Amino acid sequence: MLIIGEKINTSRHEVAEAVKRRDAEFIRALARRQMEAGAHYIDVNCGTFASDEPELLNWMVREVQQELDGAPLCIDSSAPAAVEAALKVHRGQALLNASYSGEQERYQALDPLIVEYGCKVIVLCIDDESGIPAEATTRFVIASRIIDRLKTRGVKTEDIFVDPLVQPISVDGRNCLISAETIRMVRRKYPEAHAVCGLSNISFSLPERKLINQAFVVICAAYGLDAVILDPEDRKMMGLVYAAEALLDHDPFCRSYMSAYRRGILS
Amino acid sequence: MLIIGEKINTSRHEVAEAVKRRDAEFIRALARRQMEAGAHYIDVNCGTFASDEPELLNWMVREVQQELDGAPLCIDSSAPAAVEAALKVHRGQALLNASYSGEQERYQALDPLIVEYGCKVIVLCIDDESGIPAEATTRFVIASRIIDRLKTRGVKTEDIFVDPLVQPISVDGRNCLISAETIRMVRRKYPEAHAVCGLSNISFSLPERKLINQAFVVICAAYGLDAVILDPEDRKMMGLVYAAEALLDHDPFCRSYMSAYRRGILS
Repeated sequence: MLIIGEKINTSRHEVAEAVKRRDAEFIRALARRQMEAGAHYIDVNCGTFASDEPELLNWMVREVQQELDGAPLCIDSSAPAAVEAALKVHRGQALLNASYSGEQERYQALDPLIVEYGCKVIVLCIDDESGIPAEATTRFVIASRIIDRLKTRGVKTEDIFVDPLVQPISVDGRNCLISAETIRMVRRKYPEAHAVCGLSNISFSLPERKLINQAFVVICAAYGLDAVILDPEDRKMMGLVYAAEALLDHDPFCRSYMSAYRRGILS
Repeated sequence: MLIIGEKINTSRHEVAEAVKRRDAEFIRALARRQMEAGAHYIDVNCGTFASDEPELLNWMVREVQQELDGAPLCIDSSAPAAVEAALKVHRGQALLNASYSGEQERYQALDPLIVEYGCKVIVLCIDDESGIPAEATTRFVIASRIIDRLKTRGVKTEDIFVDPLVQPISVDGRNCLISAETIRMVRRKYPEAHAVCGLSNISFSLPERKLINQAFVVICAAYGLDAVILDPEDRKMMGLVYAAEALLDHDPFCRSYMSAYRRGILS
């Protein structure tokens, strides 16, 4: 399971404050702690800063990559100008978390950047026709169209991460299974593509949200999720991810599980 | 998810001590606490007492049912004489956890009791030919044969609980998926039958076993497990079971999850 550390996001108050005072040390430490806790990618997002976003995201990318010896980042912005400002200074192959979808406006704005910089890209199962589809099969069809189109632009299937979209089970009891089935169908048709999602939407408005989020990641893993955006410093969550991987026979001889245990990462 | 509380078992030191001194209050309190924590059945086992087992199991059944106003129990013994001694005093429809399997010696000893007392029964996917089969399909075939034979004896499909057998992932990385696939196949062919298992075998010899057990129950639930033998006083575990049920759309409007939350059962 590829872990994308979600904590450098200015929707979190302390990150916003650190960015306001250009506190590079704070941002760097947060990046390093997430890597040490088991993250493979660090997500960087300063979307709450609107007009300053391009400059700030550019700064974040430089600081974080310097701290992490050039490890590739997950560029998280829905503003193409900010994405471009970040990619200009990003070293290596970035993962784009930029609301890329089957909506014409989105892909027309982002395709040139993806091609120019050779990014990996997270794609959302949305298009102009269907909005957010209520059924897994429709999401799967949209994902297939996006993947096939990206391939014609020269993007490799293995560089595509499909986000099935996650909506709260408090709104519709089927919402977990809709996401999970989308993941299963996409990965059956495109075994080289990845499936990724965030965890917090699923539990919106329920108490003890962590329990729901934890069970959700395990269920999605069983359906083929192989990348997840989460807080890697949540040891209980990470422990369950490692456990699920071992149980699903993705971790020969429980080597990663044992290694995480020895590093003190498991709860 | 049907919860079978596992704590009244003389393999646990304090239970053995309580049984030795015929401490009915201890046993009754342990039964009540498990019910209050969300158990639907209380398992009773005094298998470590060998020759005294029939008398002790009989005593346990009487005490626990009196405490629980006649709630049905899970009679846990591999000794047919002890099973019979328990059934003689058990009120209502017991669930038999007696290593019932496709082994001739087992079913010949237990069939008369099951028919006479009209029990529900847990069946293990073992027979004389295959021992413990290495593949899910073989386990499924054995389970099918046992179910079909039990039906000819007048046992209702809905009274049959299939235990897929659980072996440690430390021994073979496929062991979780073998159990899970067995569950899926059995419940697809016999939607009225149930699937049940215990959790601790899966994590044998690994550190932080609870993590593995917790992720395992969630994965099995996604494959169709609808009954589980566990410690209902483990709130974290129970919380994940409730969360999984809500996520798998088995809990309309998250009513059971919310009710468990209000009763303080969730961690």
